Formats: sequence, C-alpha cells, structure tokens
Amino acid sequence: MKKQKRIRDYGICIGSMPTGKKNLITDVAGVKVGHTTISKGDIKTGVTAVLPHDGNLFQEKVLSAIHVANGFGKTMGSIQIEELGNIETPILMTNTLSIGTVSDALISYMLEGNGDIGLTTGTVNPVVCECNDGYLNDIRGRHVTETDVWHAIRNASEDFEEGGVGAGTGMSCYGLKGGIGSASRIVNLSNEDYTVGALVLTNMGRTEDFLLSGEPLGRWIKERDKEIVQEEDRGSIIMLLATDIPLTERQLKRVAKRAVVGLARTGSYIGHGSGDIVITFTTANKVPHERHEGTYAIRMIHEDIIDEVFQASAEAVEEAILNSMIAAETAVGRNGHIRKSLKLYQDLFERKKR
Amino acid sequence: MKKQKRIRDYGICIGSMPTGKKNLITDVAGVKVGHTTISKGDIKTGVTAVLPHDGNLFQEKVLSAIHVANGFGKTMGSIQIEELGNIETPILMTNTLSIGTVSDALISYMLEGNGDIGLTTGTVNPVVCECNDGYLNDIRGRHVTETDVWHAIRNASEDFEEGGVGAGTGMSCYGLKGGIGSASRIVNLSNEDYTVGALVLTNMGRTEDFLLSGEPLGRWIKERDKEIVQEEDRGSIIMLLATDIPLTERQLKRVAKRAVVGLARTGSYIGHGSGDIVITFTTANKVPHERHEGTYAIRMIHEDIIDEVFQASAEAVEEAILNSMIAAETAVGRNGHIRKSLKLYQDLFERKKR
Amino acid sequence: MKKQKRIRDYGICIGSMPTGKKNLITDVAGVKVGHTTISKGDIKTGVTAVLPHDGNLFQEKVLSAIHVANGFGKTMGSIQIEELGNIETPILMTNTLSIGTVSDALISYMLEGNGDIGLTTGTVNPVVCECNDGYLNDIRGRHVTETDVWHAIRNASEDFEEGGVGAGTGMSCYGLKGGIGSASRIVNLSNEDYTVGALVLTNMGRTEDFLLSGEPLGRWIKERDKEIVQEEDRGSIIMLLATDIPLTERQLKRVAKRAVVGLARTGSYIGHGSGDIVITFTTANKVPHERHEGTYAIRMIHEDIIDEVFQASAEAVEEAILNSMIAAETAVGRNGHIRKSLKLYQDLFERKKR
Amino acid sequence: MKKQKRIRDYGICIGSMPTGKKNLITDVAGVKVGHTTISKGDIKTGVTAVLPHDGNLFQEKVLSAIHVANGFGKTMGSIQIEELGNIETPILMTNTLSIGTVSDALISYMLEGNGDIGLTTGTVNPVVCECNDGYLNDIRGRHVTETDVWHAIRNASEDFEEGGVGAGTGMSCYGLKGGIGSASRIVNLSNEDYTVGALVLTNMGRTEDFLLSGEPLGRWIKERDKEIVQEEDRGSIIMLLATDIPLTERQLKRVAKRAVVGLARTGSYIGHGSGDIVITFTTANKVPHERHEGTYAIRMIHEDIIDEVFQASAEAVEEAILNSMIAAETAVGRNGHIRKSLKLYQDLFERKKR
Repeated sequence: MKKQKRIRDYGICIGSMPTGKKNLITDVAGVKVGHTTISKGDIKTGVTAVLPHDGNLFQEKVLSAIHVANGFGKTMGSIQIEELGNIETPILMTNTLSIGTVSDALISYMLEGNGDIGLTTGTVNPVVCECNDGYLNDIRGRHVTETDVWHAIRNASEDFEEGGVGAGTGMSCYGLKGGIGSASRIVNLSNEDYTVGALVLTNMGRTEDFLLSGEPLGRWIKERDKEIVQEEDRGSIIMLLATDIPLTERQLKRVAKRAVVGLARTGSYIGHGSGDIVITFTTANKVPHERHEGTYAIRMIHEDIIDEVFQASAEAVEEAILNSMIAAETAVGRNGHIRKSLKLYQDLFERKKR
Repeated sequence: MKKQKRIRDYGICIGSMPTGKKNLITDVAGVKVGHTTISKGDIKTGVTAVLPHDGNLFQEKVLSAIHVANGFGKTMGSIQIEELGNIETPILMTNTLSIGTVSDALISYMLEGNGDIGLTTGTVNPVVCECNDGYLNDIRGRHVTETDVWHAIRNASEDFEEGGVGAGTGMSCYGLKGGIGSASRIVNLSNEDYTVGALVLTNMGRTEDFLLSGEPLGRWIKERDKEIVQEEDRGSIIMLLATDIPLTERQLKRVAKRAVVGLARTGSYIGHGSGDIVITFTTANKVPHERHEGTYAIRMIHEDIIDEVFQASAEAVEEAILNSMIAAETAVGRNGHIRKSLKLYQDLFERKKR
Repeated sequence: MKKQKRIRDYGICIGSMPTGKKNLITDVAGVKVGHTTISKGDIKTGVTAVLPHDGNLFQEKVLSAIHVANGFGKTMGSIQIEELGNIETPILMTNTLSIGTVSDALISYMLEGNGDIGLTTGTVNPVVCECNDGYLNDIRGRHVTETDVWHAIRNASEDFEEGGVGAGTGMSCYGLKGGIGSASRIVNLSNEDYTVGALVLTNMGRTEDFLLSGEPLGRWIKERDKEIVQEEDRGSIIMLLATDIPLTERQLKRVAKRAVVGLARTGSYIGHGSGDIVITFTTANKVPHERHEGTYAIRMIHEDIIDEVFQASAEAVEEAILNSMIAAETAVGRNGHIRKSLKLYQDLFERKKR
Repeated sequence: MKKQKRIRDYGICIGSMPTGKKNLITDVAGVKVGHTTISKGDIKTGVTAVLPHDGNLFQEKVLSAIHVANGFGKTMGSIQIEELGNIETPILMTNTLSIGTVSDALISYMLEGNGDIGLTTGTVNPVVCECNDGYLNDIRGRHVTETDVWHAIRNASEDFEEGGVGAGTGMSCYGLKGGIGSASRIVNLSNEDYTVGALVLTNMGRTEDFLLSGEPLGRWIKERDKEIVQEEDRGSIIMLLATDIPLTERQLKRVAKRAVVGLARTGSYIGHGSGDIVITFTTANKVPHERHEGTYAIRMIHEDIIDEVFQASAEAVEEAILNSMIAAETAVGRNGHIRKSLKLYQDLFERKKR
C-alpha cells in the first residue's frame, strides 16, 4: 500500500477533538474496509466494502440507522434499516448503474455463508450504496462483476487506501477528483475512550462552493483555473459512521443527522441532484438473528452526554471529505474527461480571505 | 361510579386474546385515568388525564412513541416524543380550541411538582391531545379552565367511566355518541404474562361506514333511522396504548402503527378531516431525567415475538372504540344537536349480513 | 387467457362503490400489466411488470408516492420516490433474492430506450418490489433471468391473469395460495368519473386471522382443515394504486396510507416479518425529464373531496387481496410444500358467525 | 425605530447571491413582522409574529412545510402542516413555558376574525414556536399575556427591529446575546426575480463553536474573555423561510432542509438540547379554505432549477443568525445573568486563523 498524504499532513486540522490512532474508520475495533479498483481507459469504477465486524453479520446484526439528507439516490436496503434498526450484511458502495449486479453478488456472498437463508429462515437485506461516476466512467457499460464484489469483501482489512480507489475510482468532488476518504475521533464519555469513525464516498459539489476549513478555496481555484468544467451539482455522497459507543437505533439516527454538519462545512448546499445518504452503526449493541425467548438488554448512553458524539461525527465527516480529495490523484477518464487533484492547488491553502 | 354495560356484555367479543382483569388501560400496573366532565346546556366538553405511572413523571420519563395515522389534528408535544422517545407529563385530552388553556394548566402542574424546571434544568414538554366536539359543544366558548385540568389529573384512579365523560363529553363517533373507551389484552411472552391496554377518545366516522365486529351495522342503522345527521368525517380519534412489556422506542412506534388495524375494523377509512393520533408507552423502561454518567441498559423483546403485541394492540383498540360508543348515553347539546347512543340499536346486533 | 372466477362471482361484494369496467388496475387508462410465470417442479416464481403509461416513462415521469406500512422488506427505489415524488420506470415485482437480477435487467431496459442516461443526463431509478416465495419456490436458486424481466415488460397489456401467475407464482396468503390480484373503483368528483385501480402481490398472513368480508373464514378453515401449515406471518404484500385523478405527491401519499385499511379488513395485523409496501401514482400529472425553464402547473383536487378517493383505495385493495386468493389454484412446490386454493373452502362462504 | 448596524455593515458578506432591498424577510411581498418586547428586571421575554400575507390567512392558507432538524422542542401545529402542507394563522414565537398562553391568544385572534370556525366549519391550527429564554428571563413566571400576543400581530409591519426584541428579548446565542435576525436573497429563475427571506429566533450554541464566515471567532472570544459562562447547548433555534417562488409542499420541505446548512456554518453541531425547527412557506400558492368542487392548479418550478433556491436559503439563514447577534445589545437579566453583545468583539473580526 502506498503512503498517501492526508489533509492533516498539510497542517489543516478540522475541529478540536483528538483523532483515533490511524484517523480511519477502522479505528473502531472490528471494522474493515476493502476495495476493488477498476481502471482502464474509459472504465473508471469499482467497489468498496465496509464490514461492521469480524463475525457472521447475518447471525449478529449491528444496530444501525439511516438518514436521507437528500434522496436523489438509489441506495438499497434503507427500508429495512429504518424499520428494524439493524444491518446484517457488509455495506457495499459502487456506481449507480451497477447496483443490480452488486446487490446480486452480495446476496450470493450471504447465501454462501448462511445455508439457512431462504430455507429455514427468512431472506437477507443487502445494503448497497451508490454514486454516479458517469463523468469519468463508462457507466452504461456496467463493468463491475460479481467477482469484483467478492474481492472487495474478502480483501477487507484495517488498512486501506483513500482517494480514487474502489467505488471512488471514478468519482468527482467539487469539480475536482474525489472518492474514498476517512477520519476518526476519540470521544471520552465518563472516563472511557470510545471511537467514532467516518468513511465517505464523495461525488458532489460545485467547485465555487468548496470550503477548506472555512476558507473559500473553491472560489480561488475557479479564479485561477478557468477551464474547470462547470456543472450542476449532480453527484452524491455516501457517509458512513461507525462507533463502539453504546447507542440505540434512535440515538444512531440522531448521530447520522450530524453528518450533514460536516458536509455543509465543506461547502455543499446539499444539491438537488445529489443522493446524500448517511448510515451509522454501533458495534456495541448486536442483535442476534436467532429468536430469543426472554427479554434482553441493549446499552445506551444518557442523552445528556451525546453532544460530544455529535461533534465527533461532524468533525470526522468534514475531515473524511477533505481526505477523499487530497488523497486522490488527477484522473483522466471517459472521453478524455479530466478531474484534477486538489493537491495541484496546495499553494492556495495558505491564502487568507478578506 | 355507575356500572356501565360494555360491548362484551352484549356478547360481542373482539379478537381471540384474553382481556386483562378489568379490561381497561389501567390493567397496566401504575396507569391511572381521571376525568373532568363539563356538561350544562350548550356546553358539553371536558378533560381526561392519563398518568403513565405513580411517580414523578418528569424525573422518571416513560419510553414512548407517537404515530400520526392522519395529521389533521393539533396534538401538542409530538416533536419531542419523536426525537427523544419519551413522555414526561400526564397525557391530557380535551377539545381542540382548549389546547392552549390545557397545556398552560399542565405546565402549571409540572412547575409545581418540579421546582427545577426553567431554573436549574430545562423546560418541560406538555402532551395534549384533542378532538373537535363542536357539534355538541359550544367549542368557541372555550369552557375548560385550569381548575378542570388539575381536577382531572388529581382525580385519576384505576377505575374510571367510559362514554360521554371527560374529554369525551361532547364527542361523536360514526354519527352516534362517542367519547372515552378502553380495553386490554394479556400477552404471554416466554411464559410471562404482560398487559397491553388501550384508551381511546373517539370522534370520527360516518354512520354508514360503521362495522360491528365485521357486520355493517352502520348501514342497517341508516336504513332504519333516516334522521341521523349525515356529515363528512370531520372528527378525530386519539388512541393511547400502554404496556408493561419491555420495548424500545422503535418497537413502540411499530406497535403504535397497529392501532390503525383496530380503527379500520370499526369501519373508518381514516377520513381526511380526522386527526388520528396514536401514542404508546411502556412502563418497563424508564428514562431518568438526571444525567447519568456511564451507560445504562434498556430491556427489549426479540422482534420475532412482537406479533402478539401487535395483535393485542389492534384488538384492544377495536374493542375500546366499541366501548366508547356502547357506554355512552344519548346526548343533546349545542343548538339542540343530538347524538344517539349505540344502545338504541342493540336489536340490530343479532342481524346477519347477506 | 383463461377465464378466472373472481370474488364477486361468488356473490361477495366489498364496499359500496361501483367498480371499473374490468374491475382491474388497467381500468385506469394507459396502465398495463405483464407477467412472466416460471413454474417447473421446485421452481415456482416469476416477474410481474406494471407500466404506468404507454409513453416513455423516463421522459414523462408519473407523480407518485410510497408508504411503508411495515418495512421488513427490500423494495428498491423508495428513497427517490420519497424525495422527488415520481416514478420513471415500470414497476417490477419478483421474489426477494432476485431483486438484484431484476433491477439490473430493468436498468438494461431503461438504457436501451434512453440513450442519454449516464451520458448526457443523470441515471435512472429502478423500482423493484419483492416478496419471499421461499415456501413454495427454490428461492436460493434465483431462477429469474434478464429475459424473464424483458418478457414481462413487453408482454404487458390491459388484460392479465390473477392468482399464481407472474411474481405471484410462488406466493402464499393467509396460509393458502396467494399471488396477483386486482380490482378498481369509480370515483365521481364534481360530476366527472375517475378511476382508482389496485394491484396487489399477496404473500402474508396467518390462516386463523383471515377475514372474508368481516367473517372469520380463516378460523373456520382451520377448524376443518387441521393440516394447514401453521406459520408466523413472514410474508409481505405489495399494494399498487393507480389513478387518473389529479393529485399531488402529498395527496398520493395520503391515499397510499388508506391501502392499509383494505389490508386490515382481510385480517392482517401487519405482521412483523412482512414487508408491507404501498406505491401510488397518478397519470393525471406528469413530470417532464427535460428541464423546464419557467414554472409549470400541476392539477389537484381540493382536500375536502378526497375522502371518496380514500374509500375507493381501501375497497379496491381489500377486493384485490381476495381476488389474488380466489383466482389462485392449489400449488405444490419446493419439497412438496402445498398451498391450497381458497376455492376449496367456498362452501364456508355462506356460514354466518355467532 | 432605531437604526441598527447589521453584519454587512462590518464588511462581512455571507455567500455570493444578491440580497433583497431591505435584506429582511419582509422583502417577500406581503410578509410582515411584529414584536412585543417585555423587559423589566428579571423579566426578559416577548412575542414575535410573522404574517405570511395581508389577507385572511384562514380563508387563504399558504403552502408550507416544516423540517425538524432536532426535535428537543415544543413547537405547536407541526402535525397539520406536515399532513396538509399549509399554514392558516400567523406564525408566533415566544418562550417555551408561554406556548399555552400564546396559542390560546392566537386562537382568540383567529376566532374573532373568522366567525365560522367551530360553528359551520372546522377548527384552526395555531402555529406557535418557542425557545427557552430561562437564562435571562424568569421563565417560570410566564409573563406573556393575551394582550401581548394581539399587540405583536397588530403591530406587524414591513420594518422591524432585530436582536433582543420580541421573542428574542431573553434569548442567547453561542453564549452571547441572541434573538431575532433576518436576511434575504434574490433568486433569478428563467429571467424573473424572486425573493427568499429568512427570519430566525436564535438561542443555541456554545461560544467555542461559533464561526463567523468560517473564522473560529468563538474560540478567539473564549481565549480573551474567560468569564463567559460555559454551558451545554441547551437552547433552540427557529428558522422561518418565506418566498414568492412557486413551489409545492414537497419542494418547500426540501428547501427547509437547507436551512441546516446555514446553521451549521455558524458553528452549531445541532446540539442535543436544542429544538431546531424550520418552517417554510410560499406566497405564490394559496389554498382556499372553502371547498372547491373541480380541480385546481398549483404552480411549481422544475426541480432542475431548485439549487439556487437551496443556496439562497442557506445563505439567508446564516446571515440572519449573524444579524440576530450583532444587532443585539448586551443584556442583564434574571439573577444578574449577563449575555454580552457580539459587538464587543468586533476587533476580532479582522483576525485571521492559522
């Protein structure tokens, strides 16, 4: 794995809370991330898989919530997350037109690991998120295969790359190259350290709106670089938040809504054409698939100490978005379309507004 | 307290599950109900209070959920129930135009019992539900006073009347007299008995739609009694469900949605003009007002055994609606408007359709 | 097409409103339905397609709404319907584990008909609904192919079969054979006739809960026929409502919620394990895909006359569910599992309760 | 009316879109704002009324939507706005414990102007929003009277003050003095100019989180001024957005969600204890109270041009929040509690971060 520079390496620190050890979503124990990157000529796409824990996800579901900040998107599995408050598969990300293939492959993966599905127990709810990478990628070609999906899942580990990799291969962000980004925060609750980790797939925003830690960097980029393609905000962003804090589904939903704070601080107005979806889960409360006769307990924090979780989530999402951009290299894709790397504008980072 | 005949006394049994001891919402231990009935000439209104438990409700909130089956209503307090999943006051019911007075009186009541509200802690979320009793009542006169509210709360007990009492004094149901009704069911989960109790304030429906245990009683009533005032479905129904089953807020919300099954089976199409609101709470999980530093547990049942809770809720609501009607006497109110008692048509109960 | 007997042919009339000419969802002008039935040995599944109108659905979207009565389901496309209030593809139904294949095939179909998708315009939101037919069908085999999907779409017409056909091939309802059912109602608003049509895919319910026009038929069936497999309510029901009444997305959502009234009257308690999904659309308001510079108008009815639309929807859904059962033949599927036809119990239709 | 300096007078311009003539919500034709300020010793509270148009609001309702960003609040009227998509009264704001009084007074006002309410037509849905001003105000005293409410409504005009006036009299924002603020933006759609106006009642946030146009002003203030009372984010913010753009209820709801972008950019993490409520309405689509027999039209813009409305809303809300602070004078209230004016820190406005 190549060493990538991240936004903190440029002296830009988002918020005031401490980061986890790697400053990645995988700072939450048990969480793993895997990519399949597909990049040849006009084909610029891929798959990213996030595994909530090491065990059998179907047998031990994680408590979860989903928040639709803007619903111009095709994310699958949302109805059941909303109703039951849990996730029972890896969370997959890919391009919009490959969701059929990817969900089918995810079903295959789940059937293989669980011989009871569809026979002696019910079915399974595949969770698949997507963004439209059609600017750089021949999206109509639907180049993702079942093998690519299995590879991303099996390839998952605690270390993973950011930028134009996996599902992020063909994604754009604020008119520049986007993709996969991550960050984490440590939250101290009642003298115990917990972790909140974010992973985003960025594909939204207009250049002129881009804010870097409050500075109007996008405007400055546009002033210098007239040739950046001006487009409507037609993308999307998937924001995943993992934590080991004991939270209920309702609390997880509240946390999910704070991801929008991080998004807004990078400059987005949550554009009409953008499917802006947040999924949160906690590894602290697991739901057994098997029927449990008596009652059982889930642990939660008192609502009065949840504000720090909110702040951690917003900070981690803001930083993850910036990491998705700064880690990405300039890419040339379909029809010679170009998305430049944010790195090309690092001299502007020091400029002050007003 | 006078002895009222209930729908079971006429041989009509709803559903298949056993009832609680009194077949009332107060079969759930700790729950109490109080009425203030205001009835003189054109004034036919009142207040009903439901107390979720005996203790300090602000200090020990009950886990709760709200479901808006149809939102043409003015129920107060819904936003906070939805966000925090709890209730911290008695639940009050009254006529639509008196919600201001009643919520103000409820605030007074809460301030008296809690000297910290608004000083050293936050404020309080009064929960007040309403239906429009304007057909029988001089609703523009707003005849409910602060004293009436306190009386209903302080008067609360495990025994209470049904029919045209309390908030139900001026209410109509399926073109007949409606008001307050209640019922309960015993649910056996893992060899332990729990209770689900319903209390409704009925004020909705057109006569011709009324179904009594599946029979088109409303149509038969209309055939015989041409003078029943034909009106649009402009009323409302408040449906409260209490239980001692360990449920989370999400599960309580699922339970709330099943109240609509009971409502539908009495003939309603959930009319446009009707504020059809369901509130559920469990006494099995309490939320302390005081900040709790560490984590704490709430108990829940496995989702696989929740179907019986759903059925109990639907059955209890259906029977409670019928009780609200059969317990009510014929009433004459504003401008000589009349709402007849369902009892006048009991000879039709035995008729068979087709 | 064989002539199938429907519930009215047995003298059972649901509700009081007149039916459309064929008493099918296709009484709404422009709506078409197509099936692919896959039935050989252990394989009992298929695809059903509903086309909202004759034109290019992507270019002329129909105003639409979705209501999740119970979210234990995997229906795709819900997020965007909720956000934008429209549908831009045929609505497909199939078995749960084939949603990946079917959505991919639907994307293929949409790409073929719209060369701009993913190139010069955005992507497309495939709407695919599902129920779990695993009791009769080898669902793990995922036997639906892309060809099957195209066939169902291309095969769509105003006449179509009900019962164990298309997506309904392997479905069960109240422990008997279920599948596809339909019905319609004429609504007269301001002296103009409009149509509301329902189509359901039934796969839910326990035998003992089944109500036939208010009669506890399910209980009687159980009394006679002890061998009917007793199971939890693990199925699902998809309820589609089409109309030509001018309604907004908000009004369509209100209409969708009334489908639950029809469902409840057939005996369901909206079981935990059931994905109970309602989708409504109107052909009276179309949304052009192409950007429209100025403002444009959509037509709606005044809310005060919407009650008849509610009643029509509830009646049509109740009757469609009964049609899905009575039109179905007894089926033997996977592992010799049997689902009997409701027709076997027609002698009980005349029995009276109490 | 005294001339107040606003944030633009300090050279701080939020966003890139042009403001309306007065840069107030009343730039939307027909909208009026009135205050009643109650300020004597420990009593620091009041009422603010926003009138959507000049006519009879009950007879001509405005299309409307509500978005609950965080539901720790007691705003009344939300259920009906959500169901019917309209508002039929002035929108009132006050302190949390006075909502009962204020809603009752608003009902009085509506009854006086509409003799049919509760007699020949239904009731009325009073919309009352609140924040907790208990830090500066003797909130338990409930000092707002019916007269105060009528005064605020009757006093409404196109010119109005900002800062510690009306409902804002006792409010705090980011540990400084908050209250009422407003701003507006001009949106050009298809060569026609429209207006989006915001009015906020601010009472949320921790000092250290406060951002002024991206600069961490709150942190700098805390560094200098150690004595600022450090508190949890226990406040609330009410955000109203008015426009004359033809939008549907669904579109208005989408617009409402973008107010959170403006809020987030001033530094809030949408604190747990804060009731963050957004209400939007358009004067371009009115709903007649009287039943309308045929169908009628509402006008809307094509979704593809809605992004500018989103941006305008976010910008206007961000600027309105800043105006609520900079226009407010330092206030001393209950128990000598002090909230300083942001003006005291204007020398910090020029400092640059990093």
